[in-house]
Amino acid sequence: MKEKKRIVIALGGNALGNTLTEQVAACKVTAKAIVDLIEEGHEIIITHGNGPQVGMIQNAMAALSREDPAQPNTPLFVSVSMSQAYIGYDLQKAIGEEMAIRGIPGSKHIATVVTRVRVDADDPAFANPSKPIGKFLTKEEADIVAEKYGHLMKEDAGRGYRRYVPSPRPLEIIEIGAIRNLVSAGEVVISCGGGGIPVILEGKQLNGVSAVIDKDFVSGLLARELNADYLIILTAVEKVAINFRKENEEWISDLTVAKAKKYVDEGQFAAGSMLPKVEAAIAFADSKMGRQAIITELEKAKDALDGKTGTLIHL
Amino acid sequence: MKEKKRIVIALGGNALGNTLTEQVAACKVTAKAIVDLIEEGHEIIITHGNGPQVGMIQNAMAALSREDPAQPNTPLFVSVSMSQAYIGYDLQKAIGEEMAIRGIPGSKHIATVVTRVRVDADDPAFANPSKPIGKFLTKEEADIVAEKYGHLMKEDAGRGYRRYVPSPRPLEIIEIGAIRNLVSAGEVVISCGGGGIPVILEGKQLNGVSAVIDKDFVSGLLARELNADYLIILTAVEKVAINFRKENEEWISDLTVAKAKKYVDEGQFAAGSMLPKVEAAIAFADSKMGRQAIITELEKAKDALDGKTGTLIHL
Repeated sequence: MKEKKRIVIALGGNALGNTLTEQVAACKVTAKAIVDLIEEGHEIIITHGNGPQVGMIQNAMAALSREDPAQPNTPLFVSVSMSQAYIGYDLQKAIGEEMAIRGIPGSKHIATVVTRVRVDADDPAFANPSKPIGKFLTKEEADIVAEKYGHLMKEDAGRGYRRYVPSPRPLEIIEIGAIRNLVSAGEVVISCGGGGIPVILEGKQLNGVSAVIDKDFVSGLLARELNADYLIILTAVEKVAINFRKENEEWISDLTVAKAKKYVDEGQFAAGSMLPKVEAAIAFADSKMGRQAIITELEKAKDALDGKTGTLIHL
Repeated sequence: MKEKKRIVIALGGNALGNTLTEQVAACKVTAKAIVDLIEEGHEIIITHGNGPQVGMIQNAMAALSREDPAQPNTPLFVSVSMSQAYIGYDLQKAIGEEMAIRGIPGSKHIATVVTRVRVDADDPAFANPSKPIGKFLTKEEADIVAEKYGHLMKEDAGRGYRRYVPSPRPLEIIEIGAIRNLVSAGEVVISCGGGGIPVILEGKQLNGVSAVIDKDFVSGLLARELNADYLIILTAVEKVAINFRKENEEWISDLTVAKAKKYVDEGQFAAGSMLPKVEAAIAFADSKMGRQAIITELEKAKDALDGKTGTLIHL
């Protein structure tokens, strides 16, 4: 038995798939990687993205509105809440089954917590919606949606028009108390799904806003708030690269915070892709001596924690 | 300060409304009734129905399938999971705000737990689907749905055809450990929404089934599992009546378990309405000396706990 570590694991889109059927299948694979760490006795807290899922739910609600005009428009943050339970359910089912198959006790001690995350109403992101969500639409369809719901529609990558929403920085995980209690009680906790339900403080109210919080940033915040030992960000590549897809591409196994910051400044990492992962890793590793972040692919989580692969980011 | 009691509160449909907008408004009223009890220092665990909400989500998913044939059919239990977060989010927001307005500490200590509830695959309910869900359809529409998804469609109250699903008895709350930990840690917990996500044990798997568990029955089970002092079932009437809507109608303030059982045997209570509430109350009060159940309306929760109104069911 190795020393027990507290580990926040951020799951990328490839860990969940795009459709209902894909998600069930993907969660089985994801569960194996996660149970590899549970089996070692570590405390595990899981976060995840929700891009395709929240898009599907928003599309469904919009389809319902078209069929039934009495149906009010469903705000994005409501769909985010639904996506947390939709994904959480599949994950806790798959993880529990994998634990039961391996004979690990605690297969019923996996909890999904609906999580709100506070952002700043004055976050500059609100003035510059940068995150595309939902289906690609034609110009004509986009104009109708813009007119009907007041959504900002922009051309995306030559593939059509999509809705753009702000991606503000997470400031506070509202349900952190519940999450902390569950982790300390030995539960595997699934929380902050899709970056959390974004809310802003207005008087005594925490009001939902139509935005998407980056799941890597909120994972870093969660890891700091839980005083975790590791933040493991799982994605589609085994290691972080510099000069990615160039002749002098170099895969990095070990990265100090100082060096990582230098690479960020050099523009080594793609916005909306590797950049938020590296930034979240830096913020966590930089926050306290001994805290370490790992970026690797799903199937390599355990090997990376054992120092065999992945990119380790540390002070 | 009175003695601290552990109270499971089951919210009926009128506590949540039927649409997105109604739900936000209804939750504010509901929150006041709940915070009246939180203010007294009691431990509160909330359960709720989800009829209109899960119907809305199922309708939205079906509308999406019609627009996009690649979209697979969404199983009922997946929609139940979504409804738990959809309702839980609005409830925890409204309760937190009401606490903040009254200056009660802990407004961020309200947690919604995605909850699965195990039922027996051999429950006789599966042979006799008795619970209507979703929209009323014409005969022609119903035939298409029956053909396409294999749903059982039946004529309902002369208003058209609806889908009928089984309503099996709840046997085990899978996430009871997480719920218990949160309650003991002082969190207000929202769980078992819509009666819970129904699952059956198949080998090492807990597989979702298309069924709806009665929320009153699961509330009774939850109250027993948490060793609660009270089960409060909130509904549309202030008290339980015998000879309901007859000349000799009588509103009951105090009901022993023995007398309640006698009234049940007499057929005093309507199936699908007051009957499951009284049965759940009996099962809880009968399970241990000192456990008491209250049936009353939302706004009277505190008065009923103070013995001023409602129907108290006890040994």
